[in-house]
Amino acid sequence: MKMAIQEIHQELGEDSISTDDEDLKMHGYSEWSSINIDRLPVAVAFPKSTAEVATIARVCHKYKVPMIPYSGGSSVEGHFAAAFGGVSVDFLNMSDIVDFHPEDMDIVVQPSVSWMELNENIKSSGLFFPVDPGPPDEKILAHLITSTSGTNAVRYGTMKDWVVNLTIVLPDGKIIKTRQRPRKSSAGYNLNGLFTGSEGTLGFVTEATLKLAAIPQETGVGMTTFKTIRDATNAATQIVRQGIPVGAVELLDDVQMDVINKMGATGRTWKKLPTLFFKFSGTKVGVQDNIEDVRKIVEENHGSKLEVEKDKAKQAVLWSARKEALWSMLCMRESGHEVWSTDVAVPLSRLPDLVEISKRDLDKLGLFGSMLGHVGDGNFHETILFNGNEKREMVSKCVHDMVHRAIEMEGTCTLLITIKGEHGIGLGKKEFMEKEVGEGSLSVMRGIKRSLDPFWLMNPGKVFDP
Amino acid sequence: MKMAIQEIHQELGEDSISTDDEDLKMHGYSEWSSINIDRLPVAVAFPKSTAEVATIARVCHKYKVPMIPYSGGSSVEGHFAAAFGGVSVDFLNMSDIVDFHPEDMDIVVQPSVSWMELNENIKSSGLFFPVDPGPPDEKILAHLITSTSGTNAVRYGTMKDWVVNLTIVLPDGKIIKTRQRPRKSSAGYNLNGLFTGSEGTLGFVTEATLKLAAIPQETGVGMTTFKTIRDATNAATQIVRQGIPVGAVELLDDVQMDVINKMGATGRTWKKLPTLFFKFSGTKVGVQDNIEDVRKIVEENHGSKLEVEKDKAKQAVLWSARKEALWSMLCMRESGHEVWSTDVAVPLSRLPDLVEISKRDLDKLGLFGSMLGHVGDGNFHETILFNGNEKREMVSKCVHDMVHRAIEMEGTCTLLITIKGEHGIGLGKKEFMEKEVGEGSLSVMRGIKRSLDPFWLMNPGKVFDP
Repeated sequence: MKMAIQEIHQELGEDSISTDDEDLKMHGYSEWSSINIDRLPVAVAFPKSTAEVATIARVCHKYKVPMIPYSGGSSVEGHFAAAFGGVSVDFLNMSDIVDFHPEDMDIVVQPSVSWMELNENIKSSGLFFPVDPGPPDEKILAHLITSTSGTNAVRYGTMKDWVVNLTIVLPDGKIIKTRQRPRKSSAGYNLNGLFTGSEGTLGFVTEATLKLAAIPQETGVGMTTFKTIRDATNAATQIVRQGIPVGAVELLDDVQMDVINKMGATGRTWKKLPTLFFKFSGTKVGVQDNIEDVRKIVEENHGSKLEVEKDKAKQAVLWSARKEALWSMLCMRESGHEVWSTDVAVPLSRLPDLVEISKRDLDKLGLFGSMLGHVGDGNFHETILFNGNEKREMVSKCVHDMVHRAIEMEGTCTLLITIKGEHGIGLGKKEFMEKEVGEGSLSVMRGIKRSLDPFWLMNPGKVFDP
Repeated sequence: MKMAIQEIHQELGEDSISTDDEDLKMHGYSEWSSINIDRLPVAVAFPKSTAEVATIARVCHKYKVPMIPYSGGSSVEGHFAAAFGGVSVDFLNMSDIVDFHPEDMDIVVQPSVSWMELNENIKSSGLFFPVDPGPPDEKILAHLITSTSGTNAVRYGTMKDWVVNLTIVLPDGKIIKTRQRPRKSSAGYNLNGLFTGSEGTLGFVTEATLKLAAIPQETGVGMTTFKTIRDATNAATQIVRQGIPVGAVELLDDVQMDVINKMGATGRTWKKLPTLFFKFSGTKVGVQDNIEDVRKIVEENHGSKLEVEKDKAKQAVLWSARKEALWSMLCMRESGHEVWSTDVAVPLSRLPDLVEISKRDLDKLGLFGSMLGHVGDGNFHETILFNGNEKREMVSKCVHDMVHRAIEMEGTCTLLITIKGEHGIGLGKKEFMEKEVGEGSLSVMRGIKRSLDPFWLMNPGKVFDP
């Protein structure tokens, strides 16, 4: 490892790689952790170009040193943890918009452009990039690594649907470009779809061309409460089933709404009830029409009143509850306590059952947890705060039960399951992956991994083991 | 090969495999060919279940016999040609809807269900499968093999966006299921995206779970003509740029409109001018709003009048020109003459240039060809009819020039380029693949292929060579 660091030093200069303790720590664990993980990267590299990333990969490949892509550190799932040591490659210095083609509705970016910065930059063109995860400063690389979903997914799909091409540095330092720049192509295998969401285990993305969408003429935000969580999920699935093109439909449970009130980040007191938040977007006439359709469903079937804002500033206030949900929850954590966050998805019709059973489970065990869901896709998050010394085992069982329940309902554990700050990253996950996709699919994935990264150097310990 | 056939006979019974001349011919070339290809499959297998497909694969794998998936034979690009002999596997007997989950908005089908049959079957549920390629009886397998696009793509995306999971028989006979049944998942690598569009080179799809969409409340069809092809493409890109959610926007050039008139398949005489056809879909109010937005653009900027039908029967008549375009063109072919069809896509802004230059090229060479495009995606087809004895070289040069031009405009050759009925399938293609995706990406694709199919048994000779 030392020789690799030295060689990168020599090839790319003094500032290209750091072994500073602070840097190693910063790149080895998430700021939401209460316990440090027991392994850190041995160095952090700061490439400034695709060519420099290729050099780093070539050197690491030569000395068989693990490489871990890093950008922004927004992961709450330990994606960048150095489970096997190695070099963390931080894309800090690669945050440029390389090229913007408004007339083609696409943009070429480096990995560390944040999605909000990107949208701020291009807004005068009438275009925007629609994949919007939680953190406002999340970098495009993070979108790509996880195939980010976010609240707009029900309308705009997920990250993989917006990739035109990727420039990738392979584990041995070779540079490839997956495709040219047409919006549609089926020439050869779909490498965009393979690399997007592969969690940095197949190569480094150093540049991406992304599709853009037209900024909608009109937008609106709506909110309504329900007596039960089942009513709320039923209303959401009914809206999707009828094909009403909502921009987003998000569920926050009573606990979550209460937490938002307690943290006071929104300047408003909300009812402590299961709540659906909606985004509407389209033409002036279209938005009004969609609002009326949604109003009809929630009023007629559930007796709920839909509150709507079309004024931009007021929209932001109404949406702020959704925006602040996760952060309010994380702020509730008492010092020394832990957070366990999970993410599951099931077929639409099973969502009410799963949410209801999982909430009952929490109550029965006296655990403090909230639910938040992209219900339009049958997808929801559960976040539990707990005292690790007393209740880790109980929480672990509760979460495992929920995930197994989801998989039995033909669902998915989607993202990884992590005890924040524990060294157990990726351990729990393996068990679920096999239950969910089966040994056969896993062995196909392993074959693909080996064909691209025979020495298992890229982000080892993530997704699945050899 | 004989031993493989015998063993399949023994394991699956008399009717499971045929070496009948008629069967071999039927599975070896397209009905649109004027010349037989010089190689045919040695046998045609007719599996009735995933397990039988696995048996066939296992036996073929043991004797190293090539396998070619076949369903419906709708390919006009020679996808099922037996370039290296081997066993054609016809999914004729696997055409059931296995399971339908209206409440989850998905459906489980066997490969040989046709998309129209599927939609006919489920229409009372208020749901439909939106990927609509040309041939009404095209099978789902064909959709999957090519990641079909079709006229609805601008609204609903392409085939890969509608796959929830796939059951796949690998080249060695192992059966895998890519995923469970949630509408959204990012557990492990995106095998759906990899197998969809891999043209049968990685394994047999034996079952697929597909997402469904809500049947729109209201639909409409519109049509308008333009003075020049540039005006037409400009109008189309303007509509997409403004984010008007049209269901489809299709360009037919003057030659194509003339051909439709001559073949008389639509019961109407059309103006011999570049024409845009539109589909609209959504709520009643939304559709009317979209129609008015499109009307404004074509009237104000191009002086064109938009003709619209909302009555279902009249919609079909108006859309019939688009529907009959390719078939009318193919019917124009004189006996003994050939058809050369290509498919390219470029960034939106380059489309007018590419179409204009390519049309000028045809005229200059005195070639008879028409243009038809999914212009909302920057994608168009050129179809040339010619006397092979006299003009093959000229046509070949003309098409090659266009494809190279498209790639230089950062576009794609998307589908294969074939002289119908010639044995040259896949030969011309290789050259373009390398120019388009580069040697690096090709070698990644080859690595993936080798990891799944080390003996290159699945549909050899397609997409790229070892």
